Amino acid sequence: MAKKQAVKTEPRLFGGVDVGGTKILAMVVDDKGNVVSTAKKKTKGEAGFKVVLDRAAATLQEALELENLAFADLAAIGVAVPVPVMPDGTTPAASNLPGWKGAPLIATMEKLTGRPCFGENDCNAGTYGEYVWGAGKNAKTLIGFFVGTGLGGGVVYHGELIVGENRLAAELGHVTVKEGGRICGCGHKGCLESYASKTGLSRRVAWEVLMEGRQSVLAQYVQDGRYNTIKSSALQDAYRKGDAVAVEALDELAHYLGVGIGMYITIFGPDRIVIGGGVFEALGKELLPKVKETARLRVFPEPSFKDTKITLAELGDYAVGMGAVAYAKDCLDKKTGK
Amino acid sequence: MAKKQAVKTEPRLFGGVDVGGTKILAMVVDDKGNVVSTAKKKTKGEAGFKVVLDRAAATLQEALELENLAFADLAAIGVAVPVPVMPDGTTPAASNLPGWKGAPLIATMEKLTGRPCFGENDCNAGTYGEYVWGAGKNAKTLIGFFVGTGLGGGVVYHGELIVGENRLAAELGHVTVKEGGRICGCGHKGCLESYASKTGLSRRVAWEVLMEGRQSVLAQYVQDGRYNTIKSSALQDAYRKGDAVAVEALDELAHYLGVGIGMYITIFGPDRIVIGGGVFEALGKELLPKVKETARLRVFPEPSFKDTKITLAELGDYAVGMGAVAYAKDCLDKKTGK
Repeated sequence: MAKKQAVKTEPRLFGGVDVGGTKILAMVVDDKGNVVSTAKKKTKGEAGFKVVLDRAAATLQEALELENLAFADLAAIGVAVPVPVMPDGTTPAASNLPGWKGAPLIATMEKLTGRPCFGENDCNAGTYGEYVWGAGKNAKTLIGFFVGTGLGGGVVYHGELIVGENRLAAELGHVTVKEGGRICGCGHKGCLESYASKTGLSRRVAWEVLMEGRQSVLAQYVQDGRYNTIKSSALQDAYRKGDAVAVEALDELAHYLGVGIGMYITIFGPDRIVIGGGVFEALGKELLPKVKETARLRVFPEPSFKDTKITLAELGDYAVGMGAVAYAKDCLDKKTGK
Repeated sequence: MAKKQAVKTEPRLFGGVDVGGTKILAMVVDDKGNVVSTAKKKTKGEAGFKVVLDRAAATLQEALELENLAFADLAAIGVAVPVPVMPDGTTPAASNLPGWKGAPLIATMEKLTGRPCFGENDCNAGTYGEYVWGAGKNAKTLIGFFVGTGLGGGVVYHGELIVGENRLAAELGHVTVKEGGRICGCGHKGCLESYASKTGLSRRVAWEVLMEGRQSVLAQYVQDGRYNTIKSSALQDAYRKGDAVAVEALDELAHYLGVGIGMYITIFGPDRIVIGGGVFEALGKELLPKVKETARLRVFPEPSFKDTKITLAELGDYAVGMGAVAYAKDCLDKKTGK
C-alpha cells in the first residue's frame, strides 16, 4: 500500500480591486480572508475608462510586487466599481466616471492581467465582504449600509446578493423617504441619500452657515456661496467639540438612517444589519444608538425590531476590496464546479 | 412481462381558507388551479379566535358539501390570515382580530378538519396565488400589491416568498414615504399605506368635505364628523362621474402607489409587479397609467424601470385563497419529499 501523502493545502491567492470615484485600492488576499498586500493610487476618473483600468491593473501589480508575486499567482481577480456590472461584463453610464457607458470592464481587466476577472458594484461588494469576513458573518439575511459621500448598500439574502433581475437594483439610498423633500444627486426629491449621506449633510451645513448666518467650525467647507463635501475627520472633530451646527446635522443624518433601516427591517426582516462608510468609521459609537432608536420606532410590526442585530461594519476601508475577492472566489468555484 | 398499467392521474384536491377581517372565503381547488367550489361566511372576529376558526372550518365544509366532498378528500388545507403565521403555527397579536395573540392557528385547524394544514399571511398568500396561477406566472422576482382598506403586499423571490427571518416581514405598506406625514393605522406617520389605501383616501375625502366644505357624492361616507371607509364600487361611480374630490383623492392614491412601486423596483429590480385589491378591481384600467408614470419617474437608475412589467392582478377575490392552496401544496410536497 502506498504511503499516504500529506495533502498540499497552500492557500489560493486572489486579487481585489476597489475602483472608487477618487482612489483605487488593490489588495492581494488569500482564500481565508488574510490580507497579504495592498496598494493605492488616485483614480483619475476624468482621464476616461481606458486610463482608469490601466491604473487599476497597475495598482494591483504594485500590491503583488511588494510580496514578489505576479498576476500569474492569482486564482482570479474581483473588480468592484461604483456602477453595476452587467452579465456581459460591461458597465452602464456612471455619473462620476466619464466614458464608462457600455465599457468592457471585465474583458479589459482580463486582457490587462491575464487572469479570470469578476465584477460587482462596490456597495454590493462591501456588503458581501462584511458577510463573508466581517460583521455580517453567518447572517441569514444581511443588509449593509455605507454612509460616505453618498449612501450605498447591499442585501445578502440566504447566501447571495440581491442584485435585481437586471443587475441594476439594490440602490438602497435612492428610495423616497420624504415625498417632495430635499433634492438628491440622482435628480429625484426626498431620497434617503439626500438626508443620510455627507452630501446631504454638507448641504444642510451650508444652509445653516449661508442662509441662517450660524457660526460653525465647518464653515470652512462653504466657499464663495457653494459647499464642498465635508471630510469625515472634520465631522468627528466638530461633533466631539459640540459644534451645534455639526451636532444637529449629524443627528439628522442618524435619524434618517434610522428611518431607512426601520423600512428595510419592515421589508426584509433581516437577522443582521451592518453600518460602515467614512461617517460611521469616524463617529459610529456616537451615532449608532440614535440610529437604532429611530429604527426601533419605525419597524412594523414592532416586535420585529428585536430580531435584527444592528452593528458597525468591521472591515473599514477593506470591505469593498475583500468583498470583490470573496465574490471572485465564489464565481470561480461555481465556474469550475468546486 | 407484465402489461403496463395506465397511471392514475386523478387530480389532488386542496382546501384554501381566506380568513379576512370581515368575511371568510373557503375554496376547494385542484392541483392544477381549477376552482371546484367556494363558500362564504362573515368572520365575526369580535367573537374571538375559537369562534372564527369554527366558522372557517364550517365554511370550508360548506364548500366541500356543495360537491359531495368531505375533509377526507383534501390532500391538505392552506389557511390565510391577516397576521403572520409563526413557524410553530401560532399567530402574533392581530389589530383587527381580538384574542389571536399566540393562538394555535394550525393545531386548531388540523383538529377541526383532520387534515394537514399550512398557514400564511393573506397578502403573502395573494402574491403567491398570482405567482402560481395568475398575472405573476413565470416571474423570477414578483412583487404583489393589494390596495383595499389597507395596502398589503408580498415578494416572491426566485420561487419563494420573502417572509423575513422572523416571518414578520414584507409589510410593504408600512415603509415611510413622507417623513412627518399623514398618520397611519399602525401608529407611525407617513407610511405608504396612509396614502395608498382606502383608509388613507377616505380620510382625505373626509377632510375635503368637513374642513374645506367641498361637495362630493362621497360625502355620505362622512357622518357626525367621522368617516367610514368608502366602498370600492362607490369610488368607481364617483371617479367615472368626474366627482372632483374623488378624482383628486384617487389620483393621490395612484401617485403614492407609484412612489412605492418606484422604491420597490429600485430595491428589488423585479421582472414583474402585479396590483390587485378592491380599488384596482374597480378602477385598475383608469389608475394603472398614473401609477406607472409616477413609478417611472422614481426608479433609480432610470433604465431599470423598463425591465419591470407592471400589470393588474388576475385572480380577483380568489387570489388569497388560491395562494393558500398553492402554498399548502408546496409545503405538503416538501414534507412528503415530492
